[in-house]
Amino acid sequence: MADETALPAVPVVDFDTHPDRYRHWRLEVDGEVATLTLAVDEKGGLVGGYELKANSYDLGVDIELYDAVQRLRFEHPEVKAVVMTGGLEKMFCAGANIRMLAQSSHAWKVNFCKFTNETRNAIEEARATSGQTWLAALNGTAAGGGYELALACDQIVLIDDGTSTVSLPEVPLLGVLPGTGGLTRVVDKRHVRKDRADLFATKAEGYRGATAVEWGLVDGTAPRKSWDAEIDRRAREACQGSTRPGGEGVELTPLDRQEDGDTIRYPHVTATLDRDARRVDITVAGPADQPPADPRAQGVDYYPLALTRALDDLVLRLRTNEQQLGTWVVRTTGDVDGVLAYDAQLADRADDWFVHETTQYLRRTLKRLDVTSRSLVAVIEPGSCFAGLLLELALACDRQYMLEGVYEDPHPDRDPDADPAVLVPTGANDGRFPMGNGLSRLHSRFWGRDEDLDTARKRFGERLTAAEADAAGLVTMALDDIDFEEEIRIVLEERASLSPDALTGMEANHRFVGPETLETKIFGRLTAWQNWIFNRPNASGPDGALRRYGSGQRGSYDYQRV
Amino acid sequence: MADETALPAVPVVDFDTHPDRYRHWRLEVDGEVATLTLAVDEKGGLVGGYELKANSYDLGVDIELYDAVQRLRFEHPEVKAVVMTGGLEKMFCAGANIRMLAQSSHAWKVNFCKFTNETRNAIEEARATSGQTWLAALNGTAAGGGYELALACDQIVLIDDGTSTVSLPEVPLLGVLPGTGGLTRVVDKRHVRKDRADLFATKAEGYRGATAVEWGLVDGTAPRKSWDAEIDRRAREACQGSTRPGGEGVELTPLDRQEDGDTIRYPHVTATLDRDARRVDITVAGPADQPPADPRAQGVDYYPLALTRALDDLVLRLRTNEQQLGTWVVRTTGDVDGVLAYDAQLADRADDWFVHETTQYLRRTLKRLDVTSRSLVAVIEPGSCFAGLLLELALACDRQYMLEGVYEDPHPDRDPDADPAVLVPTGANDGRFPMGNGLSRLHSRFWGRDEDLDTARKRFGERLTAAEADAAGLVTMALDDIDFEEEIRIVLEERASLSPDALTGMEANHRFVGPETLETKIFGRLTAWQNWIFNRPNASGPDGALRRYGSGQRGSYDYQRV
Repeated sequence: MADETALPAVPVVDFDTHPDRYRHWRLEVDGEVATLTLAVDEKGGLVGGYELKANSYDLGVDIELYDAVQRLRFEHPEVKAVVMTGGLEKMFCAGANIRMLAQSSHAWKVNFCKFTNETRNAIEEARATSGQTWLAALNGTAAGGGYELALACDQIVLIDDGTSTVSLPEVPLLGVLPGTGGLTRVVDKRHVRKDRADLFATKAEGYRGATAVEWGLVDGTAPRKSWDAEIDRRAREACQGSTRPGGEGVELTPLDRQEDGDTIRYPHVTATLDRDARRVDITVAGPADQPPADPRAQGVDYYPLALTRALDDLVLRLRTNEQQLGTWVVRTTGDVDGVLAYDAQLADRADDWFVHETTQYLRRTLKRLDVTSRSLVAVIEPGSCFAGLLLELALACDRQYMLEGVYEDPHPDRDPDADPAVLVPTGANDGRFPMGNGLSRLHSRFWGRDEDLDTARKRFGERLTAAEADAAGLVTMALDDIDFEEEIRIVLEERASLSPDALTGMEANHRFVGPETLETKIFGRLTAWQNWIFNRPNASGPDGALRRYGSGQRGSYDYQRV
Repeated sequence: MADETALPAVPVVDFDTHPDRYRHWRLEVDGEVATLTLAVDEKGGLVGGYELKANSYDLGVDIELYDAVQRLRFEHPEVKAVVMTGGLEKMFCAGANIRMLAQSSHAWKVNFCKFTNETRNAIEEARATSGQTWLAALNGTAAGGGYELALACDQIVLIDDGTSTVSLPEVPLLGVLPGTGGLTRVVDKRHVRKDRADLFATKAEGYRGATAVEWGLVDGTAPRKSWDAEIDRRAREACQGSTRPGGEGVELTPLDRQEDGDTIRYPHVTATLDRDARRVDITVAGPADQPPADPRAQGVDYYPLALTRALDDLVLRLRTNEQQLGTWVVRTTGDVDGVLAYDAQLADRADDWFVHETTQYLRRTLKRLDVTSRSLVAVIEPGSCFAGLLLELALACDRQYMLEGVYEDPHPDRDPDADPAVLVPTGANDGRFPMGNGLSRLHSRFWGRDEDLDTARKRFGERLTAAEADAAGLVTMALDDIDFEEEIRIVLEERASLSPDALTGMEANHRFVGPETLETKIFGRLTAWQNWIFNRPNASGPDGALRRYGSGQRGSYDYQRV
């Protein structure tokens, strides 16, 4: 294993950026077609100690890509096809930077892979959810993560110049797996035969056009002289039949985020970091107003979008920058009716592209929670508003604790005359925000227990007291105030005392019951294998392949198979 | 990570045993119902350094269980229900022995978990494939692996004595996951709600009867005074409607295995170990005779059964005892028509219980290959007989290389007048031996490419030359003798030079395309997470929970979440 004490210091990572400030990508929009060109600034690494040669990437490069993906959804409703290409000669992208990986801690590598995977998934679903087709125009070699980036697109075209290849050289050169879905997508999405996939993933130099097309690794090739025309033709063709609405977009203006000591505050979300208890308390506020007649006119201030942007940013920041805080406690505060009004609007106005995109964004953000390696606990108290779309937050948690009645003891922050908490399940919990496995969180909760699912469905729209929510199977425990605080205290203390690795593995297994998809395979299986391999001396030890890469020496292996 | 240089020496493991020699289990057959009682001999550990207290188990205990599972299929066609219970007071089984785990190498732990998983899967499918229902009669606490053993059964009854519980204490006490399918079966088979599964898997002391029944952790409870009657009632009820044929069984006599230096020889299988090349050459001989009129009369000499027993034993021995030999090369030799005659008999006589059990056993053995962490390469030469059931061996491999024509150069072992090799696909490749994911190996090979699948299906029963097999997508490469030997040499040398961990992860991802099942989730996802966790200092480091268990000190954790 890498000696993690000697690793370079990593900065606090910000996810805020804008096309005007991109160092690594160029985003050009030409009517229905956008072009996203990767031309990495070698000196622009997020952490010191490596140069981003040959269009290799690090987290900073990927943060810009994520920003572009989001803006193409919200700011460019006219864009029906996105061409992703490279700005260097002969090299589309060499994948994740190896020196960066070699010098990174295990946690950094895992987090980096998770975020890059999430962005690739967002690219992959753009066509189905937003009518936006992504086309990888490989103007040169796509190696490792470079080819995996292409795999997330709907089509892959490789330049036929006699030298450019697609490859996954991780196994032969680095002793690790392709870390962002490569193995899974090759066989499960591209349907490359298992034995050919095996050849491909062990041949460092990869394959050129003819074989790549025959095996299904790419969809087509084109020589340099007809390259632009071919890519243009495919992009125009992809635009046909698209459901993208055109018209004016909604600008994703800078996030309003205030940090004050251990508090992070957004308009509708507040997080308080308790380092001693290794915990974050997250409070989501319900909307202050009724839904607007014209959601798009509000832009980023539209409550569901503002909420989602805050949650997304918070999840990313906490995952990346606060790895010691292993438990996140989720509360809500506000008016149930206000939440339900927005919940209804998301359903009623599902045909409005902006409302639809907002819903999809919240869906993606909830999926981030599902794959977050933190224990998630919902605490449901008087004054809370866990209804419909906000109830999804509780259902994404590993446990839900609900106070029966009110807090009786005098307390400055608590109103003894408050109404007891209620939960309100709605259709939002039953399909509007499907998990990566395709199930709603409600269906997942009652997997294999159809009667219980039906029972819960019968309560849609009802304001369920703690006892009723418990009877409907929607909470883990309903306790009165004599036991509640003590129970929560014990639960959180106990959780904070357990092995973080074992909790991560346990939660990853419990959260995804039932069917598996490309996405759950990537996060659940591929990632788990990669975690193991990253930890092995053969990869990360002082003589491991990852550490020795570029030194002229191959990795030195212990050949024991396990 | 454990300092693996200081670990106790492990013996060469034999898998041969017999109920007369069991030290840990008692097998009693009473008409339609068999009872398998776990009463572990504390002093009977397979490796020194630990005592098997509280009915905890090690590999030796599990080898006996596997033997019993096999004999209950073959020697006892009259047994329709199997009651698994414990021979100690108050404790059914405490799971895998912790001191054994703590002193074991990573490879030993992983191999041990794999074998125990395979045995549990064989128990789990007994009802569906053989009409034999397994009933866990928990006469005391079932903790960790003890409860996981119960989870593999069709029913679980827990004694209601005020103290006995079911539990999965691995996460809270040991900082690892339950290693034999517990998390997966709790949510995916028993359909325990995610939040309750979370409570369960973090509560070391577990849950007693009432909660266990309510949550679905067990099917029922019974007090001591009516215990025997209740178990008997359930066992008798389980017998009803069983398809078990009754009558006389087939004795599984001791295997004929000859070891001579680096050669292991069985009647139809020979393995040659090449330690320098880190390779095993496995040659499977086709049948010498035509299929018998009465397969059962031949007993263990029936070719498909003799072959399967040899393969099963070889796979287990190589996996456990020869971990440095990372590549297995599979060849066959013999008469294609002879193989096809047996292939036809397995199909024609599928209703004969003995033929059926033999087929199922071969299926389970092929599944062992699928989850074996070795690179598998089929070499198809003149004189080979890769037809139908033996073609499955090639299809289970990561690659298939076929010689086009014959070897032209003079060579003492090679006949220049030989007929070129042929492959013969049959229905056996298309559903008789499904993989753990439910797909046939042929379907898996052409996943998502229905036209290619149809093309291959059209050739069933045909003797395909190398060029034809290549055109039908059944081999990775067809090469003439000018290139063949050189190519094989390079392939095997290259393979032997790669990181064994990366290959293991890669192969595990490529081999299971498409749908996922309980079984693939356990081997693919749960196991991968466990591999990672086993490697982390929080579990296996000198201050990790696994190493400190029993010392009175809890594990000391680095609380960073990754």
